[in-house]
Amino acid sequence: MYPKIMKAAVIHEYGGPLAIEELPVRPLNQYEILVKVISCGVCHTDLHACNGDWPVKSKMPLVPGHEAIGLVAAMGYDVKSVKEGEVVGVPWLYSACGCCEFCLTGWETLCYEQQNGGYSVNGGFAEYVIADSRYVAHFPSHVNFAEMAPIICAGVTVYKGLKETEVKAGEWVAISGIGGLGHLGVQYAKAMGFQVAAIDISNDKLEMARKLGADIVVNALEQDPGEFLKKQTGGMHGVLVTAVTPVAFSQGLSALRRKGTLALNGLPPGSFDLPIFDTVLNRITIRGSIVGTRKDMQEAIDFAVDGKVRAQVKPAKLEDINEVFEQMKKGEIEGRIVLDISGD
Amino acid sequence: MYPKIMKAAVIHEYGGPLAIEELPVRPLNQYEILVKVISCGVCHTDLHACNGDWPVKSKMPLVPGHEAIGLVAAMGYDVKSVKEGEVVGVPWLYSACGCCEFCLTGWETLCYEQQNGGYSVNGGFAEYVIADSRYVAHFPSHVNFAEMAPIICAGVTVYKGLKETEVKAGEWVAISGIGGLGHLGVQYAKAMGFQVAAIDISNDKLEMARKLGADIVVNALEQDPGEFLKKQTGGMHGVLVTAVTPVAFSQGLSALRRKGTLALNGLPPGSFDLPIFDTVLNRITIRGSIVGTRKDMQEAIDFAVDGKVRAQVKPAKLEDINEVFEQMKKGEIEGRIVLDISGD
Amino acid sequence: MYPKIMKAAVIHEYGGPLAIEELPVRPLNQYEILVKVISCGVCHTDLHACNGDWPVKSKMPLVPGHEAIGLVAAMGYDVKSVKEGEVVGVPWLYSACGCCEFCLTGWETLCYEQQNGGYSVNGGFAEYVIADSRYVAHFPSHVNFAEMAPIICAGVTVYKGLKETEVKAGEWVAISGIGGLGHLGVQYAKAMGFQVAAIDISNDKLEMARKLGADIVVNALEQDPGEFLKKQTGGMHGVLVTAVTPVAFSQGLSALRRKGTLALNGLPPGSFDLPIFDTVLNRITIRGSIVGTRKDMQEAIDFAVDGKVRAQVKPAKLEDINEVFEQMKKGEIEGRIVLDISGD
Amino acid sequence: MYPKIMKAAVIHEYGGPLAIEELPVRPLNQYEILVKVISCGVCHTDLHACNGDWPVKSKMPLVPGHEAIGLVAAMGYDVKSVKEGEVVGVPWLYSACGCCEFCLTGWETLCYEQQNGGYSVNGGFAEYVIADSRYVAHFPSHVNFAEMAPIICAGVTVYKGLKETEVKAGEWVAISGIGGLGHLGVQYAKAMGFQVAAIDISNDKLEMARKLGADIVVNALEQDPGEFLKKQTGGMHGVLVTAVTPVAFSQGLSALRRKGTLALNGLPPGSFDLPIFDTVLNRITIRGSIVGTRKDMQEAIDFAVDGKVRAQVKPAKLEDINEVFEQMKKGEIEGRIVLDISGD
Ligand SMILES: [Zn+2]
Ligand SMILES: [Zn+2]
Ligand SMILES: [Zn+2]
Ligand SMILES: [Zn+2]
Ligand SMILES: [Zn+2]
Ligand SMILES: [Zn+2]
Ligand SMILES: [Zn+2]
Ligand SMILES: [Zn+2]
Repeated sequence: MYPKIMKAAVIHEYGGPLAIEELPVRPLNQYEILVKVISCGVCHTDLHACNGDWPVKSKMPLVPGHEAIGLVAAMGYDVKSVKEGEVVGVPWLYSACGCCEFCLTGWETLCYEQQNGGYSVNGGFAEYVIADSRYVAHFPSHVNFAEMAPIICAGVTVYKGLKETEVKAGEWVAISGIGGLGHLGVQYAKAMGFQVAAIDISNDKLEMARKLGADIVVNALEQDPGEFLKKQTGGMHGVLVTAVTPVAFSQGLSALRRKGTLALNGLPPGSFDLPIFDTVLNRITIRGSIVGTRKDMQEAIDFAVDGKVRAQVKPAKLEDINEVFEQMKKGEIEGRIVLDISGD
Repeated sequence: MYPKIMKAAVIHEYGGPLAIEELPVRPLNQYEILVKVISCGVCHTDLHACNGDWPVKSKMPLVPGHEAIGLVAAMGYDVKSVKEGEVVGVPWLYSACGCCEFCLTGWETLCYEQQNGGYSVNGGFAEYVIADSRYVAHFPSHVNFAEMAPIICAGVTVYKGLKETEVKAGEWVAISGIGGLGHLGVQYAKAMGFQVAAIDISNDKLEMARKLGADIVVNALEQDPGEFLKKQTGGMHGVLVTAVTPVAFSQGLSALRRKGTLALNGLPPGSFDLPIFDTVLNRITIRGSIVGTRKDMQEAIDFAVDGKVRAQVKPAKLEDINEVFEQMKKGEIEGRIVLDISGD
Repeated sequence: MYPKIMKAAVIHEYGGPLAIEELPVRPLNQYEILVKVISCGVCHTDLHACNGDWPVKSKMPLVPGHEAIGLVAAMGYDVKSVKEGEVVGVPWLYSACGCCEFCLTGWETLCYEQQNGGYSVNGGFAEYVIADSRYVAHFPSHVNFAEMAPIICAGVTVYKGLKETEVKAGEWVAISGIGGLGHLGVQYAKAMGFQVAAIDISNDKLEMARKLGADIVVNALEQDPGEFLKKQTGGMHGVLVTAVTPVAFSQGLSALRRKGTLALNGLPPGSFDLPIFDTVLNRITIRGSIVGTRKDMQEAIDFAVDGKVRAQVKPAKLEDINEVFEQMKKGEIEGRIVLDISGD
Repeated sequence: MYPKIMKAAVIHEYGGPLAIEELPVRPLNQYEILVKVISCGVCHTDLHACNGDWPVKSKMPLVPGHEAIGLVAAMGYDVKSVKEGEVVGVPWLYSACGCCEFCLTGWETLCYEQQNGGYSVNGGFAEYVIADSRYVAHFPSHVNFAEMAPIICAGVTVYKGLKETEVKAGEWVAISGIGGLGHLGVQYAKAMGFQVAAIDISNDKLEMARKLGADIVVNALEQDPGEFLKKQTGGMHGVLVTAVTPVAFSQGLSALRRKGTLALNGLPPGSFDLPIFDTVLNRITIRGSIVGTRKDMQEAIDFAVDGKVRAQVKPAKLEDINEVFEQMKKGEIEGRIVLDISGD
């Protein structure tokens, strides 16, 4: 029976609170599927969407959420790539045009006509979410839903960011910021055969990084990360800055060895001061990296399903979403909050 | 007969004038060669060397010059890679350690133990220059010495910078700044099969760029280069900024299409404002590029010897060097000044 | 008015003759377009299709042809990437699944669920051909249809083959076989900035190669290509073998310098003798290359539209197809035969 | 005190036995060092050298051995990159010209003027070996000499071979042949983050492969490796064939998924049958891979020093060398025999 209504967390104006409402479930077009949401992670981007922080704004009213994982409950008439009952994820990259230069070359994340889940279309803070079958993430049937949810956005984001550093097995990468993104970054980096340095200002988080496999950690409040890491290792081949702040940016740059690459994950407003002389003389590369393609997603999931990467999650209820956002604004969240939506 | 003395342009203190003096010619060690200089180009870096502009300063007293081309006049006992009478160039990358991670991977330009011609050792503003035989550039015997001199530094610098944009044949590259570097950049870019846009603020220089093969030109005083180039071409796959100024940097960034790369040639002090949101969302890469390796050099020379790239040069005498520097400071030089040292 | 019937060249059994028949034009599904064919090139693959030469056989009855170019005459209800009246090409890669690991990474040519034009579905030897709008090639409105037709298969095949050699601007590539593929290969190679050697056994074809830009040519009947090219150039960085015969394969291998790559275009039955010692000691790469992706196609077309590559074509009528096949079997065709289907 | 004589295993004619003799120790030139050998691995190449198996033959009389590890006992006057007492390895790539296109690009293994240890110059089956300081491998001071010896040739060979497959973390690689090379290959592949399949015909060796981390193993006598691996995994992204035999070659090819790469380690005479249709249709790459550069060597050593790769070795005495060769000819050796030369 195709559901007629669903419970969802809805926001009606930028900056306003989310309300738990009953929304109608619209019919599917040929390529769409209806996903019964089991879990959905909460991401900083959801906060930006609700606040209207970015130049291109989210739709309103909006059901946020782009880390939804659940079961295929119904399918459009031309769906071929999934089956009913399959476990799928509904990510930020909700759909793309399929025909532009980016879509043709495995870079659909750069498609100008992309739709974004929980942003330009309704997302996963709901009992059901409609998805484009060609763009969902695929999971095996027996997964820990809550732990897999953050892989759909946070996981693939750091995994792609690590790829974008072009670091190779045996080389050094630093993960700057050991939070929701960074704690996954450390694990992906180890699974990729890298030597890993963790940079943060919390000894607790650095301790966690060590447990997750970091070979060396540095508290940026206690010593200069660039100086320390260069002395200990000769410098990083790559740095992934997950917390994109001016100080993390300049610390990251200073930790690079010559020919190193700094990759940026994150979308704050503002700009950084890029020192020219050092960038040129040391042949430094700075690169922005945003989420990942469907292929990146599948690879990121495979590492997690193999047990090489495991997200640290805390459950919350859909009804708690406003409080979760409050905690997030205050920076009080460790690991990742995952909404438990139909946990049965 | 090994010469005992030579005429050279020597500077004794930072900021001081150069004097034409007679200097002794020291004996060669096993790997060294004595090069009788025919021509030597004058580069902005020579000015920086004489002014002591950079953090690591040049030796004093100094014979500047790192675009020297001439004939092998004498050889150390263990020289194998050149012959007496051969035409060679003595570049900025005077020598390197040969054993570090950079030297081992074809990136000797990043060697921390490199010596630099006309900077940490005496260079080519002289009748003779001593060179490390393993690091000289090789030319065929019948070349136009004056036209080849700028290839040794300006040519290889832009050629390497173009490679560093990772633009492929058929794609668009913009050359920002059509001066001593840029006019060579346009030609190298065409020889590499690129579609070329030229950005400058002088219509004369843009006219020259067109004659050298630029497919599209834009005067940055008359219209916004980013907007114009994006409208005309969909955006640049790469941009090479030869005149590293804040405005050229931000214009270059705005001219890139998504996934594009901005390469920087040039070593001014200061820093740039890198906008984070656009860099991440558009997956932009910014990369510093400095001179080129011996292999890059040989490739750059091959293009020039084949007639695909030709430097526009104006002759001057060694004795005119102080005036040349004055003109350079005032930005009055078009193309490249080349000192005619033993033009017989 | 959507046409009800069309004239087409149809084959009913492997090895049989083609007959000009009237076929019904079926309706379009959501993504399909109806293309009014102006020209369609004739390719060796058409012959293989009609003969049932390959392990996976073509459908029967069959309308062959995968170098069709024409105008969009009608469109399915969900077509977004083309417009009525637009000039499009209908290539070998007729469609693909869009979701497999190859489709997701810009390698749809390797999709196991691909359909092939004039092979598993009807092709362009007809007044109309139905195409998947998402997989057609795009042309500007004022093109020489006959000259563009071979770009759709022969052009993109050699262009991709050249990319697969990983040769860079300034390096040497040899094109082995200067026929329908090779004469385009020489032009693409020059447009990509390569130095080009042409290998053939016909002095006429080698003369043509020279006119098209080859820097050096060698008649394999008169001298050993490997020896000659190594002596003249130091060896090829890449070799593209368009006529995949055992002798061309071994000549190509012997012409490579160390670290060189041999790319194979063509699908004959049988196998080659790969010498192990030399392959390992010289770090040789051998790589099969088949047609090209939609992105490769668009790039190949752009070079042709810019006038950098021009196919040599001879016109024929649809009714002549059996004679054209006879000539092809005898190896009597120079350049490319293009069927002039609705040349008005 | 510079030693005057040393004990060495010397062969005087191809196919002859080795004799333990006293040889004079010649003086060092500027770049050379004298290495007091602690351990030296025995490689199949030593056998080829002694038998004169290859087109370019080894010098005679000869001291074989290119897996020597020991201490720097004396240095030429211009040695900068090592210190007395340092632990170094003397590899197959004994020295190279330093100036050719290969040496300039980090591919000195392809230098035409390379010298080879225990082949064109005397090697490590001796109390002392003279080495070129710029080409030795570097070790930390506290290593297990015997276990590190095989890294110098077998280790770097498979490590480089794995790199040459271009497999990425998370993808599948098969190691064909789990002997002296292959047992190291499994470990390197796991350290690089690959998923690993092991192919052999011995269940004992496959059991060892599992213990070393192989994710899947297949006995080629019991089932078809290609069919089995494709069914289990979708096919290998890369295959490294360490035992270069015709059957291993064709099994490796058949185990590849589309776009896969087969890398060859080993230098037997003869040739392979390369099927054209499949190579082209599936876009297969075949690549020869020989030893590794100094950079590859250092990376291979770093993995071993970090404990991620460990060679299985059996000790022998220098005096036993003829018996070791006999066992090797009969294929009776498991793992790697290492000569214990001055084990104190
Ligand atoms: Zn798109
Ligand atoms: Zn997110
Ligand atoms: Zn310069
Ligand atoms: Zn160095
Ligand atoms: Zn064709
Ligand atoms: Zn597919
Ligand atoms: Zn060996
Ligand atoms: Zn060399």
